[in-house]
Amino acid sequence: MAHIIISILLLICTFNEITETKYISTNESYWRARTELQDAEEKMHLGYKLELTSKEKLVNSKLMEAKHAELKHGLETPVDFLPSMNFLKAKSGIEQSKVFEIIKKIPKGAVLHSHDTAMVSTEFLYNLTYTNDLFICITKNTKEIRFKFATEKPKKTEECDEWNLLSELRQNKTIVDELNANIKSSFTLLVNDPDVVYFDVNEVWKKFVSIFLTLDGFLNYRPVLEDYLYQVFKEFENDKILHLEFRGTLPQTYELNGTVYNEVELVGIYQSVVKRFQSEYPHFSVKFIYAPNRKVDQTTFDQYIEIVKNLHGNYSDFLAGFDLVGQEDLGVAAVEFADKLLKLKEEINIDFYFHAGETNWKGMTDENLFESVLLDSKRIGHGYAITKHPKLMEIVRDKGIAIEISPISNQVLNLVKDLRNHPAAELFSTDFPVVISNDDPSLWGAIGLSYDFYEAFMAFTSYNDDIRVLKQLGYNSILFSSMNVAEKSRALVLFENQWDSFINEMIMET
Amino acid sequence: MAHIIISILLLICTFNEITETKYISTNESYWRARTELQDAEEKMHLGYKLELTSKEKLVNSKLMEAKHAELKHGLETPVDFLPSMNFLKAKSGIEQSKVFEIIKKIPKGAVLHSHDTAMVSTEFLYNLTYTNDLFICITKNTKEIRFKFATEKPKKTEECDEWNLLSELRQNKTIVDELNANIKSSFTLLVNDPDVVYFDVNEVWKKFVSIFLTLDGFLNYRPVLEDYLYQVFKEFENDKILHLEFRGTLPQTYELNGTVYNEVELVGIYQSVVKRFQSEYPHFSVKFIYAPNRKVDQTTFDQYIEIVKNLHGNYSDFLAGFDLVGQEDLGVAAVEFADKLLKLKEEINIDFYFHAGETNWKGMTDENLFESVLLDSKRIGHGYAITKHPKLMEIVRDKGIAIEISPISNQVLNLVKDLRNHPAAELFSTDFPVVISNDDPSLWGAIGLSYDFYEAFMAFTSYNDDIRVLKQLGYNSILFSSMNVAEKSRALVLFENQWDSFINEMIMET
Repeated sequence: MAHIIISILLLICTFNEITETKYISTNESYWRARTELQDAEEKMHLGYKLELTSKEKLVNSKLMEAKHAELKHGLETPVDFLPSMNFLKAKSGIEQSKVFEIIKKIPKGAVLHSHDTAMVSTEFLYNLTYTNDLFICITKNTKEIRFKFATEKPKKTEECDEWNLLSELRQNKTIVDELNANIKSSFTLLVNDPDVVYFDVNEVWKKFVSIFLTLDGFLNYRPVLEDYLYQVFKEFENDKILHLEFRGTLPQTYELNGTVYNEVELVGIYQSVVKRFQSEYPHFSVKFIYAPNRKVDQTTFDQYIEIVKNLHGNYSDFLAGFDLVGQEDLGVAAVEFADKLLKLKEEINIDFYFHAGETNWKGMTDENLFESVLLDSKRIGHGYAITKHPKLMEIVRDKGIAIEISPISNQVLNLVKDLRNHPAAELFSTDFPVVISNDDPSLWGAIGLSYDFYEAFMAFTSYNDDIRVLKQLGYNSILFSSMNVAEKSRALVLFENQWDSFINEMIMET
Repeated sequence: MAHIIISILLLICTFNEITETKYISTNESYWRARTELQDAEEKMHLGYKLELTSKEKLVNSKLMEAKHAELKHGLETPVDFLPSMNFLKAKSGIEQSKVFEIIKKIPKGAVLHSHDTAMVSTEFLYNLTYTNDLFICITKNTKEIRFKFATEKPKKTEECDEWNLLSELRQNKTIVDELNANIKSSFTLLVNDPDVVYFDVNEVWKKFVSIFLTLDGFLNYRPVLEDYLYQVFKEFENDKILHLEFRGTLPQTYELNGTVYNEVELVGIYQSVVKRFQSEYPHFSVKFIYAPNRKVDQTTFDQYIEIVKNLHGNYSDFLAGFDLVGQEDLGVAAVEFADKLLKLKEEINIDFYFHAGETNWKGMTDENLFESVLLDSKRIGHGYAITKHPKLMEIVRDKGIAIEISPISNQVLNLVKDLRNHPAAELFSTDFPVVISNDDPSLWGAIGLSYDFYEAFMAFTSYNDDIRVLKQLGYNSILFSSMNVAEKSRALVLFENQWDSFINEMIMET
């Protein structure tokens, strides 16, 4: 009985019933209390620190008119609301949206989470298959496409019985259409009914990984790689992005003559493309995060450590840091490498930018979030599970560790169906350190960052949240980049100038 | 330029970069820091205030073995993970789960959110259609079923051209099977492919509302109503529930002789069934929340006010309070009635238990959450949007306003597909005031509360969260009920006794 009474007391003491509160009020003060409460909450939202000029207000009203029209239509006809449907189905709808039309013009600052071989428009990627000396094979078991550039027919491999010169196959009118269709579909996740074909997270990751394997022999040919990367920068710049930090696994990259570049040489190739691009677009800057596959044994991981030390020695400015990639649910937990990562940090003081919490599980593979915080990761890739970890949330906010949110990626890779349920909707409400990124735009037919900005603006913000959210996302992307203070302040000046041009351009249009 | 520099400073000052923190550490202290951090977070979870006896630990290990097996299988084969699929498809899988087998036996405390005509098992409901004097019609336009008990064929209505005695129709062997199938399907949302048939939230609500219309003439016949309600109590009691607070619209209830009961009389009928049930099961208690439809004009609302005053005068103990029901996205916002609700509160000091935030929208129909807080609602029905409102979260937690979470309802009514994305997963991590409820179990073929407890336990908790979560949910349901202190302490004693019996029974089984 004592046991019971103690339980009762414990329970009753748990929650203080506050009977008198300023929020309960007599009729006359109800409306004042309501306004105060709404204002207090709105002030916590992302973007509310900013003040708009009268010109910005004009542009904002245009944006908000379009936003409100789409939201009102969504309330009446929920099935039409674009962020609630798989991007693979929503894409064409987004391209007709007035909000999207404006967002395309908005300066977006930096892309901080994007992967080496998945950044370009699908069309450009496809056109690259018309490059000379490209051989193709269909793998024996999985019937996937493999590419290889060579001067003569490559030898059989375990996967491939027969290689054919693609340009020759394309001479055959009876197969060319199907062949080209197969090549196109091997580059993206696009299908008619993604919810059926990709029935769970593992299934969509299978196809996701297979795309990267297809791209491997294709984009790792040095001349194509250079064209590809140059085009990536061009598309990003054109989408009003001024800085990029991309992650890469540093795969073996080759020449027709048999030369194979090692990791340090490959980063040199990256940097040379950056320099060539900058001679035309001097304001555009790039950094690189070495991010090899997480599903490896300790011996392979030791090799990563050697590589990253080498890179750090050679590219102290260009190399932003280290990360691990691949499906967390099926990969090795970061904790398995914690000792080695701590030692690495002590030795060369490299920054970490870990993927963590890209999962629906709780207290399982999302435990990688603990390593991100404990190993002082500068940002967290995805961090989808962060809102389930209140203590980590506190630390991440206090330390200003930005969550790199890639809405479309999370949706297409089956973490969430309706983006209004994405945890970012909550993070936006509390001005949590966040940036919006695009992850692998080419895999779902997106270009640049505008599509993800659209999804974020329509799904994560409140009805009255306005252009300040978008401007703050631009600021955040610079603030949370790996740039040093001088680089950041240069980027901010550039961003402000781009922003002013955008505002003036929009006003001229009106 | 000054503008730019100020922006830069503002941004750089926004987040304090804490370079020294106790969570970054040298190798030797890393593991200690990790354990501390995990423990600190775990202590915040729902249920961690409780301590288990050695007997409880034994039962717990059995539960956790089953839980971990299901989670591990889910990690390997995500498509099989039951809380991630629509309950209409998951139900039979749940019934084979070992976790569910244990959960069925666990004392659950109180059901605090359930609706008058949707609480019984579908089978019992269907069997009630064999009651004498039941007429049926198919509506002209919508082809829905309507029922009416009568001694002779009811007259044509606007909806119905022709009424037939159901027992006579059932004599016709050529139609009886289809007829019975139609009747069964008119009682529930069950379909083969819910994701296709109910393609958005409005579509599923259309069918949802039509079911209530079908049930109207059927369950509002006084003798059937009494049988129905008695069975509800029996099923709930059998599912280890000891207290129920159900919401009702108080529809016109009739006798064969033409007598129609008014609202006060109907509540009297409810109370008489409760008393009859209590003569057999004296520990089971019931309260009622008057919750008419929210989609009404001010004149109708004025009638609600009169009714609730009348009820309050007649049933001060049995009546827990007032609420409004119906789809919030298409209903009238609570703010439209705020003045009247304030006045009502002043006049009779009635408690509110408002539905609010049962929506995916942000800064739109979820604004009802503001009224819940400002009008001092004792609990919040669903509150699905609460995590998007940080200021309201603070107040709701401080005041101990429980969020009534009905996981299956939210999933079936299209708020969320994968229950791991339900905001309750976050609320459970911070021991937020929550209770788990069942809303309308008969509409999706559930019985009692076990199915919702299962979903909550598997989808909202962390890998290591254990039986303490379930026990705490039991405590919470009593603590946040509308019972007075004496009633609560009586219910807690009952709950503790049921719990001890459950533990002993489980240990005997081992």
